[in-house]
Amino acid sequence: MKRFRVGLVGADSYTGMELLRLVASHPRLTLTRATSKADAGKTLAEIHPFLQRTELAELIVCAPETKDLAKACDLVFSPDPEVTAQLLELKTRVVDLSPAFRLKDKAVYEEWHKTSHSSPKYLKETVYGIPEINASSIRRARLTANPGSYSTSVILGLLPALRLNLLKSGTIIADSKAGASEAGREACLPNLLCELYDSLRPCHPGSHYQTPEMIQEIQELGKKNMNIIFTPHLLPINRGILTTIYAPLRKGVEEARVRSAYEAGFRRHRWLRFLPEGVYPELRNVRGTMYCDVSLHVDKKAGMLTIITAIDNLCRGSAGQALANANLMLGMPVDIALRETPLTP
Amino acid sequence: MKRFRVGLVGADSYTGMELLRLVASHPRLTLTRATSKADAGKTLAEIHPFLQRTELAELIVCAPETKDLAKACDLVFSPDPEVTAQLLELKTRVVDLSPAFRLKDKAVYEEWHKTSHSSPKYLKETVYGIPEINASSIRRARLTANPGSYSTSVILGLLPALRLNLLKSGTIIADSKAGASEAGREACLPNLLCELYDSLRPCHPGSHYQTPEMIQEIQELGKKNMNIIFTPHLLPINRGILTTIYAPLRKGVEEARVRSAYEAGFRRHRWLRFLPEGVYPELRNVRGTMYCDVSLHVDKKAGMLTIITAIDNLCRGSAGQALANANLMLGMPVDIALRETPLTP
Amino acid sequence: MKRFRVGLVGADSYTGMELLRLVASHPRLTLTRATSKADAGKTLAEIHPFLQRTELAELIVCAPETKDLAKACDLVFSPDPEVTAQLLELKTRVVDLSPAFRLKDKAVYEEWHKTSHSSPKYLKETVYGIPEINASSIRRARLTANPGSYSTSVILGLLPALRLNLLKSGTIIADSKAGASEAGREACLPNLLCELYDSLRPCHPGSHYQTPEMIQEIQELGKKNMNIIFTPHLLPINRGILTTIYAPLRKGVEEARVRSAYEAGFRRHRWLRFLPEGVYPELRNVRGTMYCDVSLHVDKKAGMLTIITAIDNLCRGSAGQALANANLMLGMPVDIALRETPLTP
Amino acid sequence: MKRFRVGLVGADSYTGMELLRLVASHPRLTLTRATSKADAGKTLAEIHPFLQRTELAELIVCAPETKDLAKACDLVFSPDPEVTAQLLELKTRVVDLSPAFRLKDKAVYEEWHKTSHSSPKYLKETVYGIPEINASSIRRARLTANPGSYSTSVILGLLPALRLNLLKSGTIIADSKAGASEAGREACLPNLLCELYDSLRPCHPGSHYQTPEMIQEIQELGKKNMNIIFTPHLLPINRGILTTIYAPLRKGVEEARVRSAYEAGFRRHRWLRFLPEGVYPELRNVRGTMYCDVSLHVDKKAGMLTIITAIDNLCRGSAGQALANANLMLGMPVDIALRETPLTP
Repeated sequence: MKRFRVGLVGADSYTGMELLRLVASHPRLTLTRATSKADAGKTLAEIHPFLQRTELAELIVCAPETKDLAKACDLVFSPDPEVTAQLLELKTRVVDLSPAFRLKDKAVYEEWHKTSHSSPKYLKETVYGIPEINASSIRRARLTANPGSYSTSVILGLLPALRLNLLKSGTIIADSKAGASEAGREACLPNLLCELYDSLRPCHPGSHYQTPEMIQEIQELGKKNMNIIFTPHLLPINRGILTTIYAPLRKGVEEARVRSAYEAGFRRHRWLRFLPEGVYPELRNVRGTMYCDVSLHVDKKAGMLTIITAIDNLCRGSAGQALANANLMLGMPVDIALRETPLTP
Repeated sequence: MKRFRVGLVGADSYTGMELLRLVASHPRLTLTRATSKADAGKTLAEIHPFLQRTELAELIVCAPETKDLAKACDLVFSPDPEVTAQLLELKTRVVDLSPAFRLKDKAVYEEWHKTSHSSPKYLKETVYGIPEINASSIRRARLTANPGSYSTSVILGLLPALRLNLLKSGTIIADSKAGASEAGREACLPNLLCELYDSLRPCHPGSHYQTPEMIQEIQELGKKNMNIIFTPHLLPINRGILTTIYAPLRKGVEEARVRSAYEAGFRRHRWLRFLPEGVYPELRNVRGTMYCDVSLHVDKKAGMLTIITAIDNLCRGSAGQALANANLMLGMPVDIALRETPLTP
Repeated sequence: MKRFRVGLVGADSYTGMELLRLVASHPRLTLTRATSKADAGKTLAEIHPFLQRTELAELIVCAPETKDLAKACDLVFSPDPEVTAQLLELKTRVVDLSPAFRLKDKAVYEEWHKTSHSSPKYLKETVYGIPEINASSIRRARLTANPGSYSTSVILGLLPALRLNLLKSGTIIADSKAGASEAGREACLPNLLCELYDSLRPCHPGSHYQTPEMIQEIQELGKKNMNIIFTPHLLPINRGILTTIYAPLRKGVEEARVRSAYEAGFRRHRWLRFLPEGVYPELRNVRGTMYCDVSLHVDKKAGMLTIITAIDNLCRGSAGQALANANLMLGMPVDIALRETPLTP
Repeated sequence: MKRFRVGLVGADSYTGMELLRLVASHPRLTLTRATSKADAGKTLAEIHPFLQRTELAELIVCAPETKDLAKACDLVFSPDPEVTAQLLELKTRVVDLSPAFRLKDKAVYEEWHKTSHSSPKYLKETVYGIPEINASSIRRARLTANPGSYSTSVILGLLPALRLNLLKSGTIIADSKAGASEAGREACLPNLLCELYDSLRPCHPGSHYQTPEMIQEIQELGKKNMNIIFTPHLLPINRGILTTIYAPLRKGVEEARVRSAYEAGFRRHRWLRFLPEGVYPELRNVRGTMYCDVSLHVDKKAGMLTIITAIDNLCRGSAGQALANANLMLGMPVDIALRETPLTP
């Protein structure tokens, strides 16, 4: 079988670490470059002792050099939109891990990020990388925008309801609870164990940058006048996002109909698990995997559908989804190296 | 100063442990009885080593005997509605910790608890024990129904908005995240550390028994056609409830007006802290105390108010509130032994 | 390639769950039986939602029937010594997960377990299943005694020092810190999250049942008059054992010599990682894997060697080691389905 | 009653936060100054939201100015040895929170800290501040060196054994497990939640800076040729130190004699709790308090005494002990504002 050469920009982030874990067991990918500004010159095992005695252990981390990356790699995972744009110029495929290419509308990006977009010309061709929704476009893409973790947990949860037009126009509420790795690996006070442990706190409630991304995709799949109020919270744990979604049902839509829409819609996607009635998503059941577990129930009087979803923010919400997108872009089955059983407890 | 004699039924529960902690430093209460069916005959220090070398250490735990309790106590904390009813017959004041006396409507109780009510005759006189709302009735009460923790976090969060009629009729969403002590101290599989740690799960979403209690109090303070959809989740931590509430604003009500309503409404209550803009509730900031921290923001386009509240479920949500109610019922200032600064980190 | 049929007794324990996770991705094993007294009749996915949509999901759990197990399986993982003995009678190979067959001396077993041994006749042929020590015997064994987790962390840590005779006779101290899964999945008060979280406690210090097993193996590898004082502690986390070992060096043995003994001794074992100087074992770096990470340093003045080891108690310390033993007993390479990279963070 | 004015240098550290919590409920201390280089100009409630609505909320944090501190305070808590020395020049009493004044021998300090001592002239008069050992000297001191947390847990655990000469000369092993607050509040990678959570790691094993402090005090209380091997570990929790100590008993000393030495030695100290046989220290039982819980057992064959101690590193190990020392230095009872019952769970 043909092997492909891949590169990883940002090998010292949590997403980078998870990509290293997954790529280490991929039978058809060879990691040829791993970059980090801070750690250039060290081996991967030196910056990540968990990689000792693995095949990746001795790879020397280098500073990110676009030309070198383009030459050495068939595809690059990049969290830096400027590196991404340069690689595209050099005809190298990219799975972009940043929020820069997720929004189709440059103006919306610039409003939420309070900055001008550095490479708007690529927005049109970029594919939003959720395999269950856009697999065929991803297969042909040279640039995939890897979705935000929170957005993934919201969009997958709403998918059958939007596709079968079960919801009313109006406001959907998404209340997310995420592991602290979702806040990144920056050495800042709020990320310290003693600031998070045995506690819980909201995180940019009402103004989180992933909100417009969710709205864009929801409106794409559903109706133009749908809106989202999004409140993320940070849990004192490592991984996972559990999102509770409250969405108004169209008049007359009953729970049985919603349930059968989810059963039918999820059956053909191996990573989407619609749980039996009375069973609810738990973060531990998706740990380290691509699974998205979903339960739902209807409040008949209020006409409101409550959907609960659980994903692993680092695997399904970030590195794993990036690898699934890379698998597709390189012409391989989507789930190579992504068939693990959750680690629990 | 006059001292009062109090009794505690259920000294082996988490609420019981928290009451022991608080009563231990109360200058005017003497614990004369602590009961436990399982541990009768042991000293408090034997069943709770954290109490060693405290004044409560050598008290012998006894089986609950109503007559004895009535004789030995001016007031009893009781999680058992049958004991409560018997104590009332014997003219002993009670702070009832169970859900049995919280709902004024026997039929609603019986519908949600799938059982008939054992002592409906006391429902009429019972006072719902939130000191900031019902202090004067509590002072005169012989039976106070200590509110549920979740309900406390919802009702306190909505208080100024309801009192000043800022909300529309319709559905309010309350999404709660609670420490595992909220699930009680029963030795069952779902409560084990390895079933909860590094995870998160919903807990009776859409059908939690505290829902009708919230609805009753919301309708009492606000409008008759208000409804609540309530989703509790269990955090892998000991204590605390953070609730995110989504409530539709009346047309034209702007954020500034809501903020000033909360500032004014909370100023005279020492335990209600309305946080400065940009500061959000965190569970650690209320640990071990009666504080309820509250922030809010408005989504103008959706006309939706998001309120975030944090309390300690064992102190404010249970034992501490019970003690505050007892303080009032015995004619003392509400906050004796309840003036602690949070333990953080 | 030939496939083998295996059975799992005790599918509802933590070791059982970990075996299910590992067997699910084993290319040459078919799980034909999974037993549980409490859950017979349910599917594996019903008792373990993390297994949904995996190949094991629909297997029906049955009550343990020895004859049926013997017929349906080439090898059985058994935590029940009586089932083990019956299976041996029926010519079925067993990896025994209990402590019953680990001690060669029936009298020592009976002294520490305060009970008579039910099947002493198998003690003689049983192989103590640490692959790095006994691989060739395990390959020929029909009964392997899977070692205790604590013992594994102690024995692997001491291995090169004992083999090269670097230690004095006398007392070795082993101070272990283990995740709560080490206490098992029994629904009892001490195992509740709220009894363990944000805390730490010793667990049978000075009298833990694995002590004689360590002493037996240490004396086997080293000297007859070596002794161990063992203190286990329970961490408020799921998995892992970190053991700090204090062992008196023979006179004149210097740190450099010890280091080279460990480098040489560990090099040919892929799961034994001797860490570079200044790097220390951390539980997260071995999570979900067979790795044993080891560091050491010498206090020259005291003539004392401190060895620190980290393993995953459920994988290396229990289910993973059992699978490695099964791999050997069935004539396969030891590390099939056991080559994972640690999940971190 | 006379009130005293105190100042706190380093109000943004974890020790600073704990001192603020304790001073807030002290009936005879007024906090007149709280300093922080980073946060000068803000109120205490702004940098510590847990202090909102407490008496300390509105105090303006200032940069540390020695003359101003000397004028405004009867006593200062100082983690900065240079500020300490200047305050002493200005005749202000100090509880020094740094390691600078704990070692009587300047050379030992300079060897372990690889730096020259800035104020050796104060070493002679400094009192090592463990109230149970040095209360009468502390009462007369103008400079108390607040002990290290680890050292406190070791010294208190050995106290009766050393005083009654129960131990042999030679090497004592102290294996400590501490909450992450023990690593301080610096915003660096190793302190992040995702680097510590669900894990455990050693921390400067064999070379921790508190080792010489322990040795000095052990030799002071016991014998000149006693030595300590000290291994600290960092737990993924906020607070607490559990230390397991292994000490060789003098020949012929039996467990009964050791137990009675501890019972007698601890009885008159309200914070030292010698636990009944079969009960072991747990961190939760000392949370937020000055208690030191101690259990012991003897391995007769090895002649080894195992002592297990638990303290709260921030209260007993740091801020609380500092306040106890201040209480003594200002002529008050040692335990004012330090009589709390542990918060558990």
